[in-house]
Amino acid sequence: MEVGPRDGLQNEPAVVETRAKLAFIEALVGAGLTRIEITAFVNPRWIPALADQAEVARGARAHPGVRYAALVPNVKGYEAATSSGVHEVAIFLAATDGHNQKNINCSTAEALSRYREVTARAHADGRPFRAYVSCAFGCPYEGKVAPGRVVDLVGKLLALGAYEVSIGDTIGVGNPRQTVELVRALKDVAPLDRLALHLHDTRGTALANIAAALDEGVCSFDSSAGGLGGCPYAPGASGNVATEDLVYMLEGMGVRTGVDLDKLVRASLALEDALGRRLPSKVLAAMRSACA
Amino acid sequence: MEVGPRDGLQNEPAVVETRAKLAFIEALVGAGLTRIEITAFVNPRWIPALADQAEVARGARAHPGVRYAALVPNVKGYEAATSSGVHEVAIFLAATDGHNQKNINCSTAEALSRYREVTARAHADGRPFRAYVSCAFGCPYEGKVAPGRVVDLVGKLLALGAYEVSIGDTIGVGNPRQTVELVRALKDVAPLDRLALHLHDTRGTALANIAAALDEGVCSFDSSAGGLGGCPYAPGASGNVATEDLVYMLEGMGVRTGVDLDKLVRASLALEDALGRRLPSKVLAAMRSACA
Repeated sequence: MEVGPRDGLQNEPAVVETRAKLAFIEALVGAGLTRIEITAFVNPRWIPALADQAEVARGARAHPGVRYAALVPNVKGYEAATSSGVHEVAIFLAATDGHNQKNINCSTAEALSRYREVTARAHADGRPFRAYVSCAFGCPYEGKVAPGRVVDLVGKLLALGAYEVSIGDTIGVGNPRQTVELVRALKDVAPLDRLALHLHDTRGTALANIAAALDEGVCSFDSSAGGLGGCPYAPGASGNVATEDLVYMLEGMGVRTGVDLDKLVRASLALEDALGRRLPSKVLAAMRSACA
Repeated sequence: MEVGPRDGLQNEPAVVETRAKLAFIEALVGAGLTRIEITAFVNPRWIPALADQAEVARGARAHPGVRYAALVPNVKGYEAATSSGVHEVAIFLAATDGHNQKNINCSTAEALSRYREVTARAHADGRPFRAYVSCAFGCPYEGKVAPGRVVDLVGKLLALGAYEVSIGDTIGVGNPRQTVELVRALKDVAPLDRLALHLHDTRGTALANIAAALDEGVCSFDSSAGGLGGCPYAPGASGNVATEDLVYMLEGMGVRTGVDLDKLVRASLALEDALGRRLPSKVLAAMRSACA
C-alpha cells in the first residue's frame, strides 16, 4: 500500500497544490503501484495539508486494477470519501489509550465503539475497509506495547470486517526480534493475508523489520514514495519506510513487486520539486543522478 | 569494529584536524567501543584526509581492553603503523579483479601474493591482523559477485593467518537473502567467530542484512559513528552503516553491545561540528535534540 499522498504529505511542512498531488498519484500508478492511499477525509483544521481531499479524490484518474483509499474518522468522512469516488476506506486508532486520548480524544474501547457505525455502513455498501493500529510497537505516552494488546485489538477489528489490519510502528522504535514476536502472536487471531505492516524508519530499522516479517509470512507492507513524510533533520524525525528502498530490497530478494523503480524514482523527484526539499529515501539518493 | 575514524573520515569531503580526530577517538572509547580502526598507513597522495596517520596513531591514548587498528597496504605501511603503536593491522583487497586493478593496481592473485610479506611479518611479530574483502556482494566493474569467489578468497586469507575476515558490501547493493546465502557458503571454510560483515547502507539495507547474518550466527560487524563517510545527498552516495543505528537495533533485540548510545551520539555531534555537516545516522537524527 502506497501511503505517500496521505501519510507522507500530511507530515510534510510544505503544502503541495492539488494539481501536483494528482500528477504524483498518476505517476505512482504509472510506476506500477496498485493500492494507493490518496488522502484523508478528516477536518482540514487537523490536517491542513489535505484540505483538498474531495478535489484529490474526484480528480484522481481511474485505472483498471488500481484501488484508491482514503482515511475516514467517522460516517461524515465515510460519506464524503465514497461520494468522491474512492474505492476503499480506512479507519485508524492506536493500540494504547494514551495515544488515542491525545490523537482522537477517546479511549481505545470508545474508538472501537465509535467506528461501529462506519464499519456497518461499509458492510452494508459492500465497501472494503482497512484498519490501522498505530503505536503497536511503542507509544510516546506509554512506552513499549505488549503484543497481547495489539492481538486483542486486531481480533476486534477483523471481527468488525476489516479486510486487512495494518500494524503500525508509528514512532519507529521496533526491531526484528520484536517484529517476529508480534507477528507470531498475531497469527493466532489473524490469517496472514489479512495483516499488513506500516513501519516508520525513524531509527533505520524498518527494512530489517520487514525482512523479518516476510520470513514469518507477512506479504503486505505500507510505504511512502521517497520516504515522504519524514524529514531526517527535524527533531524527533519520523517517516514511513521509503517505497524505493522497500522495492529495491524485495526485488533483490527475488520478491516481485510489480513496481518499476526508475519510474518510481522519477515520481519522487518530481514531487521533490513541488516540496522544495530532498526526500530521505536512500535508493532515491543513490539513483538521483542517473534518473535526473 | 568502529571504522569511523578511518573508513568514515577517508570518505568525507572535509579534512578534520588531528586534534579533533584524537578527541573523537577518545570519545568513542568513552562510549564503550573497544576495537577502533583509527587511520590508514597509505600514501597521503591517495588518502589526503588521513595524511596525519602517524600523529593520530601516536596521539591516541591507550586504554585497557581497547585495541586500535590501522589499514596497511604493504610492509612499509606495516612498519610505520606498528612503530606508531597500533595494536593490530588490516590488509584489504576486493573479491573481484576489476576492482583490485582499479583500486590497488593488480589482480586478486597478485594482491594475495603481495600481502604475503606483510602477513609473514605480522605472524613473526605475533601481531594480530584482519583482512577486508571488499565488493563481496557486488562490484561497480563486474556486477553481482558469486559467493564462491568470496569463499575462495576468505579461505586463503584465513590460511595466511588473519584473525578475522571482514566481508564488505562496498557499494551497498546486498539484501538479506543474499547475505544469508553468502554467510552459509562461508561457513564451509570459516568458523563463524572469524567472520565479520562490513556493510554500507547506500540503499538502506545494511541493518536488514545484519539482522539476517546475526540469525546465521555472525557476531562481528563494522560500523561508523554517525554513519560517517556517506553523504546521503551526494550522487552515488555510500557510507558505512551507522554505529548508532546498529547499537539501537541490537540492544532492542537483547544483544548487548557494551556501547552507551547517549555518549556515542555526543561523540558524533562533536564530530559534526568539526566536519561542518550533519551525519546521516537515523538514530542520531532522532536523538539530536535530546542530546544536544
